[in-house]
Amino acid sequence: MSSHEVSFADMAGAIRALAMDAVEAANSGHPGMPMGMADVATVLFSDFLKFDPSAPDWSDRDRFVLSAGHGSMLIYALLNLTGYARPTIEDIRNFRQWKGPCAGHPENFLLDGVEATTGPLGQGLAMAVGMAMAERHLNSAFGDELVDHRTWVVAGDGCLMEGINHEAIGLAGHLKLGHLNVLWDDNNITIDGSTELSTSENIAARYEATGWHVTSCDGHDPEDIRRALQEAQESELPSLVACRTVIGKGAPTKQGTAAAHGAPLGEDEIKGAREAIGWQYEPFVIPDPIRDAWKATASRGRDAHRDWLNRLKEADQREEFERRMDGDLPDLGPIDDYIADLVSKEQKVATRKASEMALGVINDAIPETIGGSADLTGSNNTKAGGIGAFSADDYSGRYVYFGIREFGMAAAMNGMALHGGVIPYGGTFLIFSDYARNAIRLSALQQVRAIYVMTHDSIGLGEDGPTHQPIEQIMSLRLIPNLKVYRPADIVETAECWKLALMDRDTPSVLCLSRQGLPQVRREGGMLSAKGAYRLKSAEAERKVILIATGSEVQVALATAQQLESKGVGADVISMPCMETFAEQDEAYREDLLPNVNPDTILRVSIEAGATLGWERYTMANGLNIGLDRFGASAPGNVLFEQFGFTADAIVPQIMDKLKR
Amino acid sequence: MSSHEVSFADMAGAIRALAMDAVEAANSGHPGMPMGMADVATVLFSDFLKFDPSAPDWSDRDRFVLSAGHGSMLIYALLNLTGYARPTIEDIRNFRQWKGPCAGHPENFLLDGVEATTGPLGQGLAMAVGMAMAERHLNSAFGDELVDHRTWVVAGDGCLMEGINHEAIGLAGHLKLGHLNVLWDDNNITIDGSTELSTSENIAARYEATGWHVTSCDGHDPEDIRRALQEAQESELPSLVACRTVIGKGAPTKQGTAAAHGAPLGEDEIKGAREAIGWQYEPFVIPDPIRDAWKATASRGRDAHRDWLNRLKEADQREEFERRMDGDLPDLGPIDDYIADLVSKEQKVATRKASEMALGVINDAIPETIGGSADLTGSNNTKAGGIGAFSADDYSGRYVYFGIREFGMAAAMNGMALHGGVIPYGGTFLIFSDYARNAIRLSALQQVRAIYVMTHDSIGLGEDGPTHQPIEQIMSLRLIPNLKVYRPADIVETAECWKLALMDRDTPSVLCLSRQGLPQVRREGGMLSAKGAYRLKSAEAERKVILIATGSEVQVALATAQQLESKGVGADVISMPCMETFAEQDEAYREDLLPNVNPDTILRVSIEAGATLGWERYTMANGLNIGLDRFGASAPGNVLFEQFGFTADAIVPQIMDKLKR
Repeated sequence: MSSHEVSFADMAGAIRALAMDAVEAANSGHPGMPMGMADVATVLFSDFLKFDPSAPDWSDRDRFVLSAGHGSMLIYALLNLTGYARPTIEDIRNFRQWKGPCAGHPENFLLDGVEATTGPLGQGLAMAVGMAMAERHLNSAFGDELVDHRTWVVAGDGCLMEGINHEAIGLAGHLKLGHLNVLWDDNNITIDGSTELSTSENIAARYEATGWHVTSCDGHDPEDIRRALQEAQESELPSLVACRTVIGKGAPTKQGTAAAHGAPLGEDEIKGAREAIGWQYEPFVIPDPIRDAWKATASRGRDAHRDWLNRLKEADQREEFERRMDGDLPDLGPIDDYIADLVSKEQKVATRKASEMALGVINDAIPETIGGSADLTGSNNTKAGGIGAFSADDYSGRYVYFGIREFGMAAAMNGMALHGGVIPYGGTFLIFSDYARNAIRLSALQQVRAIYVMTHDSIGLGEDGPTHQPIEQIMSLRLIPNLKVYRPADIVETAECWKLALMDRDTPSVLCLSRQGLPQVRREGGMLSAKGAYRLKSAEAERKVILIATGSEVQVALATAQQLESKGVGADVISMPCMETFAEQDEAYREDLLPNVNPDTILRVSIEAGATLGWERYTMANGLNIGLDRFGASAPGNVLFEQFGFTADAIVPQIMDKLKR
Repeated sequence: MSSHEVSFADMAGAIRALAMDAVEAANSGHPGMPMGMADVATVLFSDFLKFDPSAPDWSDRDRFVLSAGHGSMLIYALLNLTGYARPTIEDIRNFRQWKGPCAGHPENFLLDGVEATTGPLGQGLAMAVGMAMAERHLNSAFGDELVDHRTWVVAGDGCLMEGINHEAIGLAGHLKLGHLNVLWDDNNITIDGSTELSTSENIAARYEATGWHVTSCDGHDPEDIRRALQEAQESELPSLVACRTVIGKGAPTKQGTAAAHGAPLGEDEIKGAREAIGWQYEPFVIPDPIRDAWKATASRGRDAHRDWLNRLKEADQREEFERRMDGDLPDLGPIDDYIADLVSKEQKVATRKASEMALGVINDAIPETIGGSADLTGSNNTKAGGIGAFSADDYSGRYVYFGIREFGMAAAMNGMALHGGVIPYGGTFLIFSDYARNAIRLSALQQVRAIYVMTHDSIGLGEDGPTHQPIEQIMSLRLIPNLKVYRPADIVETAECWKLALMDRDTPSVLCLSRQGLPQVRREGGMLSAKGAYRLKSAEAERKVILIATGSEVQVALATAQQLESKGVGADVISMPCMETFAEQDEAYREDLLPNVNPDTILRVSIEAGATLGWERYTMANGLNIGLDRFGASAPGNVLFEQFGFTADAIVPQIMDKLKR
């Protein structure tokens, strides 16, 4: 056969064969989705998706997000067939193996062309919403010449059933993100069996109620798929295309059943499937004509890329555009000046307010920040620097009213950061980091610069009571790899931590900020927060105690030290705005702050109004941990600090008692 | 005025006055919702809700859930006015104060009549779904005579915008929970301002798409409210009543705006509101006629309660019904026999499979268990003991296909446990505890017996890769107060932990279970898991090392100890299936297992395939922590254990190196 004799079925067959063969070789994986969506994906890549395999980072490419990430073989097959450098066939043979790039679920940090790490259901689609937001925002700044692309999503029933789906599509519908198209693998099957076991929803009606355009197609009829995708592309609303498919299409006995979903098909079934789809080739063999036909699908994108490069060359804003898309920060001089100025005068403010003040400077100095709050704007103090609302009427706005959608917000932030050209931040109460937790984890796993502004960071929030008072949240966020958890003690540390968060290109940050006013404890510059912890006060009498505190408890540590000194007990105070960063310092620095001597010689004491588990890393097992290992209570914040013992008067006797032993 | 001259406006006015005056006195709180929903609540309590203030625990009462928990003064006012023993007017004067029962958000453990702790948005409604499920399930067992009540919810825009709303209403619609009625405070206002800032959704259409009956009413017109509630009550589907209200109704300048939402109205505004609503009484004064009129609303419920008591007396199943509603377990002999039998023979099984085996016995012995999975039935091994599906066609079923709704599942479990008469359990992958995290927290805060079956508890799950491999989840769950996190090492510990979880009436449990097969390490009975940790193996040579491990790493600890002993280094192995329970043991027991001596004398080593932060509590700062402080990877589980160093061969040299220092 020559390449012009290659049929649509041959092309889709290549996807199906690679998917079932790779899963079989790995003895693990999900063949059902790639086989079911092979026809839709073939139409999408052949006739709609704008992509250039030779330039996977081209900023005006369409984004393709496989929200149903368990069907990872679909994207690996597509990337291989269309001519991306990786995955090679050898990579695909190593599907799901140690050090291979073809992981069980697609990982953005392993393969170009994988726009997002997916698998945790619902989040791919929700990240796509963020990508589509970033696209429209950058379009408003740089025009159609430089920014005019679409975001395409393949999502399954799981993605649509998860709660985050409601948040994501609500946001997309409200913002009229017409460049977002979701291809729903409508196959009526979930892991447990028929969708009828657990849902009776009219999904089309729900999407329509949320401001989406909805259409459907026979997901195995190329003409009908093309018609539906065209319709989606033309709509000014975000679109859902219900692609009616048969899961595991081609597998003679397992197609259309849950048996095709998440396990190798087995030798006999694969043999039967080869016959059914007319694929007579050996595993992992793609005949040249079929490969050529697939590679030809990239020509549209290659041409578009060339034209775009020509436009870029001529563009007035080229330099600024490239800076932003490269993720390089502009001059941070204004922020340094702001911090220098803070040191020279003393102010008592809540760190959430200090964050707003820092953000005012940041938003003026860095045009690519785009931020918002999950309906707590006035509490999170996230609207600063005179930025206006990002809305369907005005995509140039930089303030996002995310609504009461914490999880959707965090996922959208990930999508924006992955898209590039913007630096997203978003606020809620720290307690509701719980709602967004897996998206924060995905920020960390995907190595994106997303900045979480989490206010009301302890019992200090007061009257709202235990449902709203973080206890375990700070420590539990510290447990997430590649996440920086900052808890600044005052206005100076807050500004420093903001700057550090902005400078960390591959690591998300959480800023834990107080509701209540905090006295300024820092009167010198030097960006001391950059080491994660530093000696804020040195012992005057012989050092017997080292107090380690964060955030609003640093002032308590200072008062405690003062009382100890008055009793002739020397005490250092260490402010530790970022435990993770401190852990990265060299041993000499860490040993200088926290010498490895027996607690009998120097007692180490942690003070943090939250769970104590974890603090033993720094206080040693026989140190003293002042914290809160129970739920909070409803009362004014200062009363709670008293009652729960976060005062020098309550802490000093415990230290004296320990010292006596 | 006499009590029959009391008008509807007077009754609703009492709510409005108490709400605005309490918030003013506390200088903190949310007057807008209680004032806006005062009329709806007055109709609901007067004409619909079945309640008896003298018997707040009466099991056939209607459940009233204030999902918009920030409007807590609504329920405090209602409980006081209708004649519950608490809150008293004095309690209401102490709104949001230390030790008062009128917390910022309603807490189920502080006041009878508060059915659920609410405030984290969306979860009240989702818990109500669980209550309605429990009601129908118990109805199927005990008939209309004993169980026939409704669940009423007051929810705000926030509750409806949160992702969990989609999960909860999807489940309720699918299950046709006609006894569930949601009164939506449709006031077009959120904290940030108009709902138009963040949503364009047609909520009625969305609910209809999900199988709900939807109606609406003028939320300030008693007749219209009555009509709508009647309609909701008559529908065989769950019902949403859109109550069009004005937030802060009565406040002359602030009503209808976000200013009325979450802050005291201020003296002048309150004065104006008193005039507007015709309330001429002093703060916290309720004239007797008005109080009498309110108390009279309880007569319907009192009569119904009396009739019910008469029916209970006659009921054949009285004893079993009372046992279940009291939360007492039946004879656990079969479970003890099962465990005894396990000890006598050795089996290698995954602990998820061991859980299924234990559940088979449990579900046979304890008819009140009701469980399910968030679409991972075959992976979580949660369907055991021959129980059938709980469905709209058959509410007697005990297996719930929760769908891909982890958060909704956990909240529904809370609702079921709060309702009483059932013991809920639910499964998902441990990684997706992140999705449900705040509901797990609410299990703990509300002190309910909900049992989470969390499988695939480490990198041992293998090929699915880092998005699916828990790293920080186990330790982060341990940080939640009043939650037991079990990680059993083998089939015996799994059965023991299940039994312990069932016996813990006021504490939820998480069972962390392996995907992979684990050898049986226990060959003796004695319910050793009940102490949280125990010495599984004693040092043979002089004890130089104590190895502490959990779950699948206990076998690694045993192999490590064996190698150490062969080098003449004595090593204890401690299995620690529950860190929290171990912490509760007396000092002598803890000291016996982990003597407080310098690491130079006895080195303590933790082995757990997860985050190490926290383990220093038990290994001391100079101990050794074998764990994983990075994200996992995609490869077969045994390869990952090798590569990440969870083998005796990798661990022994590290120990020998430490011992040499």
